[in-house]
Amino acid sequence: MSEDFSFRVYATDGEARLGAISTPRGIIRTPAFMPVGTAAAVKAMYPDRVRALGYDVVLSNTYHLMLAPGAERIAALGGLHKFMKWPQPILTDSGGFQVMSLARLRKLSERGVTFQSHIDGSRHDLTPERSMEIQRLLGSDIQMQLDECVRLPCSSEEAERAMRLSLRWADRSKSAFGEQPGRAIFGIVHGGVERALRVFSAEALAEMDFPGYAIGGLAVGEPQAAMLEMIEAVAPLLPFDKPRYLMGVGTPDDLLEAVRRGVDMFDCVMPTRAGRHGLVYTRRGRLNLRNARFADDPRPVDPLSSSPSARDYSRAYWRHLTKSGEILAMMALTEINLAYYQDLMSGARLAIKERRLDAYIAEVQRDWAEGEAERR
Amino acid sequence: MSEDFSFRVYATDGEARLGAISTPRGIIRTPAFMPVGTAAAVKAMYPDRVRALGYDVVLSNTYHLMLAPGAERIAALGGLHKFMKWPQPILTDSGGFQVMSLARLRKLSERGVTFQSHIDGSRHDLTPERSMEIQRLLGSDIQMQLDECVRLPCSSEEAERAMRLSLRWADRSKSAFGEQPGRAIFGIVHGGVERALRVFSAEALAEMDFPGYAIGGLAVGEPQAAMLEMIEAVAPLLPFDKPRYLMGVGTPDDLLEAVRRGVDMFDCVMPTRAGRHGLVYTRRGRLNLRNARFADDPRPVDPLSSSPSARDYSRAYWRHLTKSGEILAMMALTEINLAYYQDLMSGARLAIKERRLDAYIAEVQRDWAEGEAERR
Repeated sequence: MSEDFSFRVYATDGEARLGAISTPRGIIRTPAFMPVGTAAAVKAMYPDRVRALGYDVVLSNTYHLMLAPGAERIAALGGLHKFMKWPQPILTDSGGFQVMSLARLRKLSERGVTFQSHIDGSRHDLTPERSMEIQRLLGSDIQMQLDECVRLPCSSEEAERAMRLSLRWADRSKSAFGEQPGRAIFGIVHGGVERALRVFSAEALAEMDFPGYAIGGLAVGEPQAAMLEMIEAVAPLLPFDKPRYLMGVGTPDDLLEAVRRGVDMFDCVMPTRAGRHGLVYTRRGRLNLRNARFADDPRPVDPLSSSPSARDYSRAYWRHLTKSGEILAMMALTEINLAYYQDLMSGARLAIKERRLDAYIAEVQRDWAEGEAERR
Repeated sequence: MSEDFSFRVYATDGEARLGAISTPRGIIRTPAFMPVGTAAAVKAMYPDRVRALGYDVVLSNTYHLMLAPGAERIAALGGLHKFMKWPQPILTDSGGFQVMSLARLRKLSERGVTFQSHIDGSRHDLTPERSMEIQRLLGSDIQMQLDECVRLPCSSEEAERAMRLSLRWADRSKSAFGEQPGRAIFGIVHGGVERALRVFSAEALAEMDFPGYAIGGLAVGEPQAAMLEMIEAVAPLLPFDKPRYLMGVGTPDDLLEAVRRGVDMFDCVMPTRAGRHGLVYTRRGRLNLRNARFADDPRPVDPLSSSPSARDYSRAYWRHLTKSGEILAMMALTEINLAYYQDLMSGARLAIKERRLDAYIAEVQRDWAEGEAERR
């Protein structure tokens, strides 16, 4: 393992890349999906099971951790890796997205944003400098610049204003990050669903020379086609030899289509959240186990899954536990979903290596469609 | 493994017994604590982790399973063991206790009890014959007679009436159980906290020659001393070569004091329920991890626990997750508690073998007292 943060592309297939990010805490094979550990835990998962599924990195949220238990407290306890017993790399977001989606009484200025906690109403201050300080206190391996996320749809003027503010905050975040050997800061491309704004943002950030780049502010309600168009506009402008991270995305199909367009990293609450609500992602599409059709179904969720919970129990069992509100159902369905997301990504990595990604995606999509047709 | 149901006492220390119940599904080392798997799952635990902690048998609830998903459905899916992926022995209760504590609009008669489901208000009928039919459909290895549980305190007349009804139901339950090779039915001693009633009940049941005996209707609010007095009155009247099961008990101290008085089996929701509410049982007494004193506590929950979750994380971490409502805290604290209950019982088994049970219990109680004094 390297003492530096570095990224290397090992193979390409069209725009898609097979790569690896090296950090002192371990290697992240890309394309990579990152499970979300909002409050210093991937919900309903022991960290060793997350690792056993093949995950190399998890994401945790600055906003949540700054409110509870507090960044200074986590630092005093030895940092986030030790706190949550995840010795592998951790990526933290900047807090910007949750401030916009969760916090109350937000006041935005050039300096940063003040807000009230959605938990206890306490007042907080988040600037690019404070966000980087928190992420440093946590000991995050990949830290994100503070950005302003706007809700879509929004006016072109509003998207441009937020994008330009995010660029100025990128600069301040990078300065505040300073030198942290083995760690990296990523800049975040913004610009809503306007190609010209996205291009401007990507080129300006590339100019600033970040160790990695994210595409933010997508998968917030716009059609998939609009999202993919933005990726197509941005990816070729980002340095080839730096990792590209599409934030908050997405469905299995979103992931494959973005990998095809050159994205290397993803995070999303979808597999974990869905698992807590009786929804499982499988080779044959998504099943809603609350559905009465599964009450007497002796078949496994997916006989080819990497998760024993998908193979060794009946759908009827998981339906019964889901309907009964049993925690074990949330645990098992979360794991089944994370196993599926990992299977999907490891399949994509292999397909890129063998230059047959389009065929792989077509096969996966065919399986989903067949499964859905069968259930109709 | 035997094809018959049998019990053998290997060693005694005073009234306490070290033994083993043999069944075609495996051996149950006694004294044994049985984790409760109410709705066909030990809450927040994968069955393989329950097994790995050293548990040989789990309990499941007839009342809950008859309401959802239904005994006939579980039978059609291959029985309860396959349904919940627990191939080891399962003990089921008769439904009587939950009918009294959970169901609505109960109507008790000589024949049985009718009630409305606490979930959807549907009407159900539970007789000794139906209870045994349900337990047979589930495939339970140790089935309990239907009994009437009265709330304490209650009048002597009421306790006697319920005890006599339970004896008549014991007879009908035994007939309905019939012959089920490898499986057993237990009779249940009742009589409130009246020594004479308990003695009458125990002698009448012993006369009926059950493969095992339970002591029911205790740990329902009476002082520990009253419970122990009832055990002392009853245990010597039960056949030496049959297992004795104290239902619904209890705290770690209850378990040790009952083992000392000749009880072989226990079940209780306490370790699992407490774990879902931030309470952990340790060598040094019970900790309430919601307490602010643990917010910055870097120490493990218990460095000598059998559960890695008690050793490899800080108290501060579990407090944070508990306060945040994280499922992982419920999972880990449940496991820590079940590990502690198992450690306690395996310690008692060893101590009986070495005829030093009193010294063992004194040492365990000293540790609890020291831990509590330390936290005061």
